[in-house]
Amino acid sequence: MGRHEDDDHAAEEEPVEERPASAVSTESLLAASVDVEEEEGADWATQSSHRLLAYSDALLSIIATVMILPVAHTKMEVDKELDENLQLLLGTKMAVYLMTFLIVTVAWAAHIRLFQVIVRIDDTLALLNLACMMLITLLPYTFSLMATFPTHILGILLFCGCVMVIGGIQSVIVLYAFGRPFLLQDQIRACEDHSVYKRHILKVLLRVPLICLLAGLCSFFCYQLSYVLLALVIFLPYISRGVLWFRDKLLGPVEEDPEQVMFYSFLPSEPLSKERVEAFSDGVYAIVATLLILDICEDNVPEPASLQQRFNNSLVAALRSYGPEYLAYLGSFATVGLLWFAHHSLFLQVSRATRVMGLLNTLSLAFVGGLPLAFRLTHELPRAALRDERRAVQASCVLVFGAGVFQLATWVAALQGGGRRTLRPAVRYGGPEHIFMLAKLALYPAVALAAFLLTCVLSRFSVTIFHLMEIATPLAFLLLRLMVRVAGALLRRLFCPQRRQPENGEENITSRVPSNALLT
Amino acid sequence: MGRHEDDDHAAEEEPVEERPASAVSTESLLAASVDVEEEEGADWATQSSHRLLAYSDALLSIIATVMILPVAHTKMEVDKELDENLQLLLGTKMAVYLMTFLIVTVAWAAHIRLFQVIVRIDDTLALLNLACMMLITLLPYTFSLMATFPTHILGILLFCGCVMVIGGIQSVIVLYAFGRPFLLQDQIRACEDHSVYKRHILKVLLRVPLICLLAGLCSFFCYQLSYVLLALVIFLPYISRGVLWFRDKLLGPVEEDPEQVMFYSFLPSEPLSKERVEAFSDGVYAIVATLLILDICEDNVPEPASLQQRFNNSLVAALRSYGPEYLAYLGSFATVGLLWFAHHSLFLQVSRATRVMGLLNTLSLAFVGGLPLAFRLTHELPRAALRDERRAVQASCVLVFGAGVFQLATWVAALQGGGRRTLRPAVRYGGPEHIFMLAKLALYPAVALAAFLLTCVLSRFSVTIFHLMEIATPLAFLLLRLMVRVAGALLRRLFCPQRRQPENGEENITSRVPSNALLT
Repeated sequence: MGRHEDDDHAAEEEPVEERPASAVSTESLLAASVDVEEEEGADWATQSSHRLLAYSDALLSIIATVMILPVAHTKMEVDKELDENLQLLLGTKMAVYLMTFLIVTVAWAAHIRLFQVIVRIDDTLALLNLACMMLITLLPYTFSLMATFPTHILGILLFCGCVMVIGGIQSVIVLYAFGRPFLLQDQIRACEDHSVYKRHILKVLLRVPLICLLAGLCSFFCYQLSYVLLALVIFLPYISRGVLWFRDKLLGPVEEDPEQVMFYSFLPSEPLSKERVEAFSDGVYAIVATLLILDICEDNVPEPASLQQRFNNSLVAALRSYGPEYLAYLGSFATVGLLWFAHHSLFLQVSRATRVMGLLNTLSLAFVGGLPLAFRLTHELPRAALRDERRAVQASCVLVFGAGVFQLATWVAALQGGGRRTLRPAVRYGGPEHIFMLAKLALYPAVALAAFLLTCVLSRFSVTIFHLMEIATPLAFLLLRLMVRVAGALLRRLFCPQRRQPENGEENITSRVPSNALLT
Repeated sequence: MGRHEDDDHAAEEEPVEERPASAVSTESLLAASVDVEEEEGADWATQSSHRLLAYSDALLSIIATVMILPVAHTKMEVDKELDENLQLLLGTKMAVYLMTFLIVTVAWAAHIRLFQVIVRIDDTLALLNLACMMLITLLPYTFSLMATFPTHILGILLFCGCVMVIGGIQSVIVLYAFGRPFLLQDQIRACEDHSVYKRHILKVLLRVPLICLLAGLCSFFCYQLSYVLLALVIFLPYISRGVLWFRDKLLGPVEEDPEQVMFYSFLPSEPLSKERVEAFSDGVYAIVATLLILDICEDNVPEPASLQQRFNNSLVAALRSYGPEYLAYLGSFATVGLLWFAHHSLFLQVSRATRVMGLLNTLSLAFVGGLPLAFRLTHELPRAALRDERRAVQASCVLVFGAGVFQLATWVAALQGGGRRTLRPAVRYGGPEHIFMLAKLALYPAVALAAFLLTCVLSRFSVTIFHLMEIATPLAFLLLRLMVRVAGALLRRLFCPQRRQPENGEENITSRVPSNALLT
């Protein structure tokens, strides 16, 4: 509702024109069309970039996640040990998935930076952006080629070529936008000399394509060096951010050198766009949830012929044989849904996302993207040997744990320095929702850890129990709120039976702080 | 950017609290937590429903579209005639896809109506909504069962049961929200007697589940009747709206009976939420675009073993054999991207979406969802017989034409009555962008029609030419703008060489209208 309220277009309530449409001749139409076309600063010739960015986020999140499908669809050979299969899977295909995910998120981060500078678009920019998106969709493919044939240089060349073309298109976007300053962010627009910004942005933008060019050239005489260079591109931002974060945590926050900040970003003070982090996360959760139903729809509709042969034409009997898979679906959907819910609750209280939070969130999403594999593992194997079943549950636990624990880490990162710049008051230290948020975010890691430990201890821990646990977890959320409420009511009754009634439900938190302070 | 500006949370700039976190004891924390918990009207206990709705839209659009995959993945038998295959496909599986799409959009429309009444959410509502989503994901599956085994009543019972449970959850949502009026829309909240609204909404909400209950009961003695009832549920809103629209067009707009309006909706004056139409459409376009790359990633990475055997270990030769498929991918992505672009341009100028526009948009999206099939048809068949190739192109043309022509129809519907309530001034009759919008929206239907006619006339029209046409179309968009501009410049020079310069690029359209009027 009113998502566009900030949009220039939506805000202007157009005055009702009373001129009848037929009074305008075609000629005047044409003339008018050009008349306004000339003044390109006109409000309606440019467009708020909001929907373009939402669509790009949707595309990028789906592209990042969809590479889990080749992993999940790998045929499990039941006669072999699952261990061996798992090693094969987790060793190579999972690595490809994870790397693709990281590559796409690097591209996504670059896209965010670019469209923090260019805040309005026109038709040409929209088309250029679509071309850029098309090339980004090719990244997973070229990367698979590179991973499947590591010794063929063609894979490296294609991947590097792809990255270079993307860099080229992005440079064209920057040049185009700087030629039409009304498209730019107000801060830069107000600045007298655009060319300083332009040169700086191009320099940051072209760094990655240049490394890729180097990697491509290297591949002709020493392809191992190319891989080192490419790994540098993908991991450098993560590593440098991680090191900075740990340094800040150990030595206290250090004022960052403006020069150094500028080296990594386009704008001097540039927070990560919280909306885009949310949109990207929503895309990942949505595609993961629906990949599950796709599997059900493709595999669990019995063939009419086999119904006759195997089940004596009884549809009930045929569907009953799928029972464990329905349970697996319900459990997995509940898990994905609840992880989304925890993410939603967290980001509702985030007022500003820092880069470290963005990185931790990306890692959490990478684990979420792996959940279709957990689904496959636990639903293809209910009939396999006992030990394998426990292995499948353990692998699933690891994925769920990873997804949950990095969400928790995102919150912990936000709490650094009291969370004054990153969190709303309610969930900071001392805020009324602080404990509750901790409980919400710690629930999944705790459940996953408990399930993992149970598989080690109990010899008869089955996939079915795991799925029932998954389905029961949502109730824990509601129970949690109830428990906090009951405990609080008891405490209140014990400590201050005659506390004053709050006069108004709309009063804000700060006005309530003194009345709370009375209680202690 | 600033998408949340309207959100209660984002708007309040929290005052900086200077109390150190450690000064707050755990007891006061707990007490405070309950203290505020009690007053559930507190700003931060409830949440703007924006992100929940965006996530629901993403889920629903993917669920609606994903059923095209079983259609697209049907193995084409090259030894049979494609005609026969096409008939088989288009006859049964396409019907299942289309019906599923319509069913999901009916559920989506109900979801929109519900969350136009409930504008704020809390944790319980978020969890109830997720449960509702989970059941909606089961609709495509139960529908496939029903379609595969039309004579087994189990399919009908499962489908009806699913719809009834969804209705039940939605009723619980309504009852819960009416128990906490601060969650409701302001208009209803301000109203003294909520129970009238509550009863009315429940009545509208439970109509479909009741028909399904009836259909389920019918299935025990006459399952054909059940299908008639279910068809009623799905098509009734479309048919009644269509009839109303044609009546309005033929006889002029009639003031609708308030009673009748209330019969179909929850609120007396309820426009379709434009944001949600956009979000749903974005989801469909995004998933279609990425289903394409998924096919490429799964099928076109050669196996290391086959590389050795078939291509003498030359990766270049192996990839060259996929050439036509890359071309197909580029063409299809360009088509999907451009159709999104046209949709984006259109909705940028839409100020208010009516129900008829919503329906036409849904039909357009149903065709867009079919595009992966077009991709499959045209990329699996470059090696088949000539006649089949032309058939595949023709089927693709029909899909593209459908997608484009219903976009155009959406605009035509918006223009009814001069578009005063539905469109921004720029694209109304006489607006400076009117002709340009027409050209944009008419481009794809025209190209598809041209391609279709060419396949009938030319005997050597191949899939390759079709894809090249698809790739070339984006250039037509840019060419179009250039042509309009050049023509306009010429006209201006001919008719008024000494027209006054516009003093300011920021002036709005209405102030420009007189200066345009001078030109004629």
